Amino acid sequence: MRPEVIRPSGREADTPREVRLTRGYTRHAEGSVLVEFGDTKVLCNASVETGVPRWLRGKNQGWVTAEYGMLPRATHSRSGREATRGKQGGRTLEIQRLIGRSLRAAVNLKKLGEFTITVDCDVIQADGGTRTAAITGGCVALVDAIRYLQREKKIKGDPLIQLVNSISVGIYKGVPVVDLDYPEDSQADTDMNVVMTESGELIEVQGTAEAGTFNRTELNAMLDLAEQTGKALTQHQRESLEIRS
Amino acid sequence: MRPEVIRPSGREADTPREVRLTRGYTRHAEGSVLVEFGDTKVLCNASVETGVPRWLRGKNQGWVTAEYGMLPRATHSRSGREATRGKQGGRTLEIQRLIGRSLRAAVNLKKLGEFTITVDCDVIQADGGTRTAAITGGCVALVDAIRYLQREKKIKGDPLIQLVNSISVGIYKGVPVVDLDYPEDSQADTDMNVVMTESGELIEVQGTAEAGTFNRTELNAMLDLAEQTGKALTQHQRESLEIRS
Amino acid sequence: MRPEVIRPSGREADTPREVRLTRGYTRHAEGSVLVEFGDTKVLCNASVETGVPRWLRGKNQGWVTAEYGMLPRATHSRSGREATRGKQGGRTLEIQRLIGRSLRAAVNLKKLGEFTITVDCDVIQADGGTRTAAITGGCVALVDAIRYLQREKKIKGDPLIQLVNSISVGIYKGVPVVDLDYPEDSQADTDMNVVMTESGELIEVQGTAEAGTFNRTELNAMLDLAEQTGKALTQHQRESLEIRS
Amino acid sequence: MRPEVIRPSGREADTPREVRLTRGYTRHAEGSVLVEFGDTKVLCNASVETGVPRWLRGKNQGWVTAEYGMLPRATHSRSGREATRGKQGGRTLEIQRLIGRSLRAAVNLKKLGEFTITVDCDVIQADGGTRTAAITGGCVALVDAIRYLQREKKIKGDPLIQLVNSISVGIYKGVPVVDLDYPEDSQADTDMNVVMTESGELIEVQGTAEAGTFNRTELNAMLDLAEQTGKALTQHQRESLEIRS
Amino acid sequence: MRPEVIRPSGREADTPREVRLTRGYTRHAEGSVLVEFGDTKVLCNASVETGVPRWLRGKNQGWVTAEYGMLPRATHSRSGREATRGKQGGRTLEIQRLIGRSLRAAVNLKKLGEFTITVDCDVIQADGGTRTAAITGGCVALVDAIRYLQREKKIKGDPLIQLVNSISVGIYKGVPVVDLDYPEDSQADTDMNVVMTESGELIEVQGTAEAGTFNRTELNAMLDLAEQTGKALTQHQRESLEIRS
Amino acid sequence: MRPEVIRPSGREADTPREVRLTRGYTRHAEGSVLVEFGDTKVLCNASVETGVPRWLRGKNQGWVTAEYGMLPRATHSRSGREATRGKQGGRTLEIQRLIGRSLRAAVNLKKLGEFTITVDCDVIQADGGTRTAAITGGCVALVDAIRYLQREKKIKGDPLIQLVNSISVGIYKGVPVVDLDYPEDSQADTDMNVVMTESGELIEVQGTAEAGTFNRTELNAMLDLAEQTGKALTQHQRESLEIRS
Repeated sequence: MRPEVIRPSGREADTPREVRLTRGYTRHAEGSVLVEFGDTKVLCNASVETGVPRWLRGKNQGWVTAEYGMLPRATHSRSGREATRGKQGGRTLEIQRLIGRSLRAAVNLKKLGEFTITVDCDVIQADGGTRTAAITGGCVALVDAIRYLQREKKIKGDPLIQLVNSISVGIYKGVPVVDLDYPEDSQADTDMNVVMTESGELIEVQGTAEAGTFNRTELNAMLDLAEQTGKALTQHQRESLEIRS
Repeated sequence: MRPEVIRPSGREADTPREVRLTRGYTRHAEGSVLVEFGDTKVLCNASVETGVPRWLRGKNQGWVTAEYGMLPRATHSRSGREATRGKQGGRTLEIQRLIGRSLRAAVNLKKLGEFTITVDCDVIQADGGTRTAAITGGCVALVDAIRYLQREKKIKGDPLIQLVNSISVGIYKGVPVVDLDYPEDSQADTDMNVVMTESGELIEVQGTAEAGTFNRTELNAMLDLAEQTGKALTQHQRESLEIRS
Repeated sequence: MRPEVIRPSGREADTPREVRLTRGYTRHAEGSVLVEFGDTKVLCNASVETGVPRWLRGKNQGWVTAEYGMLPRATHSRSGREATRGKQGGRTLEIQRLIGRSLRAAVNLKKLGEFTITVDCDVIQADGGTRTAAITGGCVALVDAIRYLQREKKIKGDPLIQLVNSISVGIYKGVPVVDLDYPEDSQADTDMNVVMTESGELIEVQGTAEAGTFNRTELNAMLDLAEQTGKALTQHQRESLEIRS
Repeated sequence: MRPEVIRPSGREADTPREVRLTRGYTRHAEGSVLVEFGDTKVLCNASVETGVPRWLRGKNQGWVTAEYGMLPRATHSRSGREATRGKQGGRTLEIQRLIGRSLRAAVNLKKLGEFTITVDCDVIQADGGTRTAAITGGCVALVDAIRYLQREKKIKGDPLIQLVNSISVGIYKGVPVVDLDYPEDSQADTDMNVVMTESGELIEVQGTAEAGTFNRTELNAMLDLAEQTGKALTQHQRESLEIRS
Repeated sequence: MRPEVIRPSGREADTPREVRLTRGYTRHAEGSVLVEFGDTKVLCNASVETGVPRWLRGKNQGWVTAEYGMLPRATHSRSGREATRGKQGGRTLEIQRLIGRSLRAAVNLKKLGEFTITVDCDVIQADGGTRTAAITGGCVALVDAIRYLQREKKIKGDPLIQLVNSISVGIYKGVPVVDLDYPEDSQADTDMNVVMTESGELIEVQGTAEAGTFNRTELNAMLDLAEQTGKALTQHQRESLEIRS
Repeated sequence: MRPEVIRPSGREADTPREVRLTRGYTRHAEGSVLVEFGDTKVLCNASVETGVPRWLRGKNQGWVTAEYGMLPRATHSRSGREATRGKQGGRTLEIQRLIGRSLRAAVNLKKLGEFTITVDCDVIQADGGTRTAAITGGCVALVDAIRYLQREKKIKGDPLIQLVNSISVGIYKGVPVVDLDYPEDSQADTDMNVVMTESGELIEVQGTAEAGTFNRTELNAMLDLAEQTGKALTQHQRESLEIRS
């Protein structure tokens, strides 16, 4: 039995926000998914381009990468546009590197052939957990881009290894909780993002003590929560993609 | 009687696309409007900030400005992210300067007081006419931001002078047409963007011969079309804002 | 009969400033023209380079483009050097895009062959109307560059379609006036730049209400003034280039 | 009993490289430490400056931050200088954000007073684990900077909460190993950086599956290794700083 | 007796090019001088601004600085615009630092009061020796800016210490020559720029062996040539400024 | 007999600081030398790369270039990192251009073949004379890189023409002195950097009057000092490289 905690969101410690995955959200991208984790809304557009980056040429494989951005007023107060400031900030670069690494874990690049899939994750509205939503929704967009390549007979075989999802967990007022929204995240003692496969294996674990420290017991409790929610996320992804178990 | 023309869109020469204005599209911005001109979708977020740019300080007036961006896959093929390239392109800067000038025509800056309203216009999906949609929708978001200032008793009086709208017109295969979508725009001989007040006065006229030239007769025919459509846009704005005539 | 107005310049409403076109102003450029509209002085250097930009390769055509700059103390008070600030401003980019588009209207790019002509327009002294002077003088430099290509037998045939000129018009204290200098421009209600061919057809019309709005009658009065002055500019260009009518 | 593995370094799975901490390595910085983890050499200079960043002014507290850089030929083949390329790369920004967060966990910013301590971590020679060496050595430089402030009577009391150290662990050919050098790191299946306090509490855990995935058992085995090595690192730090247990 | 040399320019070894100094070349700058060393033409505009850079505030002194630029087609083939490339090149920065240092040697900054004089040196046409022309002409523009301050009663007393001039010398085909034009400069074995006061004292000596080396004898021969030409340059400056000896 | 002067360093006017050249300082670079002129410490890493810059391709020759940087706290107070500011400053660019030119004087580029040697000079600790130390130490690193190419049989023959060294001289309180440290340099009236070959020929002379001016007599006295010290520097280089005279 979990200890009781009054989360600002009113949710139970182990209850994530409602998840919505809307495929075909825009019409140009080969995969276009609006992912919502409660009030966090991220548009994930997967674009297929022929060819690979220079350093991969002639290696007979494809590439999957991601870019991340936030509309200036996705947040409570307006933040300057990165295009205006002339560079992407450290947080942005860190997040898009994480998304790219995570999505590559879903794909056999050899089987992808010499195509590059870029998954643009743009935050329309932010309320905590934008990177985990982006990975979860970006994976669905990625699958649609792969299906496009198959449908158009540009590749044979299936480069998809597994679905990938992500969720945030944390220690809020001493209690492990899942899927923190912005008010929870900004007061949490520890914040951890976990990226998992559909079978619950770990791809990435990034835990940070925002105040004080955390111990192994807390770490394990957070991972338990992540694992349990990951199963639900996989279920959402499969339903959205109409994959029969 | 207008000459006949087979527009790729199948529309009559003087028929604009369906316009939709969705207020309150995101929850943080003081004004947040999704504007749709057919398949062109632009999110216009108006943000209120206390204070004015340095060069206006102590002049006892406010400021209205705009920024414009396009999601990388808003277009048919993916274009690089401006934040990654490290600067906004010439087209972007030109468009956001136009939007800012146009929206300032709607506002009495003296009555606005020392507040800055920034209208971010981000193109979610592009199909021609993004700048005209941005001005038309941005004006509605601007009004919502002004209403916020009034509701919060931050300003007295009404800084709104008039609603402002915009539409594109052009010469397509020799015939003046209104509200060009992307296939039409890319084949048009002349392309013109017109910004008007709700009473049909002109704020900005930008006409460009893409191939060949145009004459005064064609210019006047295009302006007639713009004027007529401007009335309809004003009507859309007023209904959306629940303004009684 | 035009209404009376006391212009700061003392000129009649329909009287442009004295125009001077000095060819061969510097010795390296294939076309080098100092254009003066009164105290506005712009050096237009047209440079011929073999080859075309990447996106035009193999299309069997040439390219004409323009760049615009202003010496730091071309203006009343010194403005920072764009090279020092690390980027060209929005106004600069907007102007050089306009000049490039306008000059391309003068040339049949297919007949130009795989050459690029870059017209650098650098403002030595500014007193309003720098972009219109740049287009008018840049066109003369462009013709000299084309003549260079012909003289050197690098191209056959004549890629020149027509001369192109430009003039500013505006509404100053309620009266339509032509060729505004800086004091006039900064107080004008409406400012419009018109680009025309030698036969008076329109290439570009950019009218902006700086204060208030303008109507169709005013627009037409301004265009009448532009048309009339355009004829004189064409005459100046032809004389300078020693073209017999 | 650990499974056997032939590490390229010839080390046992649980044996870290030799650690050396040289204080007073350069003479200008308030704290200057060369940290060596085997062939990885990082110069950590802690600089004290009066005042805090703008967003902390008037909050009656100090600030600790870090910057990270790599000499162009610290690595096996030369990589371009970030100053020449005009920006810090994503990896650099990610690492310096991690170092900064980690070092702030060592300090009570309220007790630091309105001083900023910047810890510059510059990699002289790289052989894997540069960020963990930087945190471990940077903490010693940070303590020297704090001692300087105390010695100069600029602050009263002791803002140091605890020493902080960091080590990398990973799964190499299926076996959990500690302190991976470059050849090991580039072939590891999973790579994890752990930041700990001197009492073994966790500050940051960043685990990434480079190939495939990892499970909870492997995660725990890696954390056991990190914990055990962390004790030794603390001992090195205390000896270097002449702190009696 | 000098050895004979056939200079591409046809000039004697000790004969500089014709020097022209045109004051009042543009009308906005407080000092505006077009300096010509033969075909090298540099526009030197001295701008007076109230106040000094941040790091000089409260020190009760003024500042003199310089910026240098080259129009894209000042040279034989077009070079990219630095504003477009996003930064000033190393050569540009090196030259403008030299000009600034040299011109500061002409001025008593204490007597200048809290004004900044920026001398913009923009090369209209280049044929070797642009930096020496810029210093020589920039000094005249600087004097005009000082006279403006005196005339406007903004300063009392005379901050001018002495006139400053500059000339290039070199070893061309084994023979010391003065004032190298571009064809000579590009084939010279050694190139040296000398900055002197009106009494012939040295302010800056920058000699570079472009091919091979040079010895003390050659250095002294070059300095003799520079000294002799410096006297003539001073005479030109004094005549231009109507200073009676 | 030299006049007496009390140098802050306590050294005689003609006594340079102790010089140390440590080869093989880091292990990856083909040439890696730590050069110390007293407390000035510069790490010079020479990297060999196959190929030459674009503008040298097909010319059957090699290239030698240099880059210069300073660790943020190499100096008395911390200076911002150039990678963070987004560009190399003018001083940095000027110095690295000087180092590159100087080192190219040591090498027959034709005999080097199509290889590029980049010498990175990074200042670990600064106390005046960093550029002269960089040239002197960089030359030794360059020789090691050339020896690497010979040892690996990548080139035949010896591209080394001569060793190159550099020293600073100046006028301190009216007296010519050699090898100024930072306190001396910041108070010197004149500062001059001299680059010489091992036989004492001049490659580069850069003398600047920091306050007032200097005359030919002082220039010659400084050059005498430089020449004399250059011989000692050559001796250090030869011993370090184990070259028998």
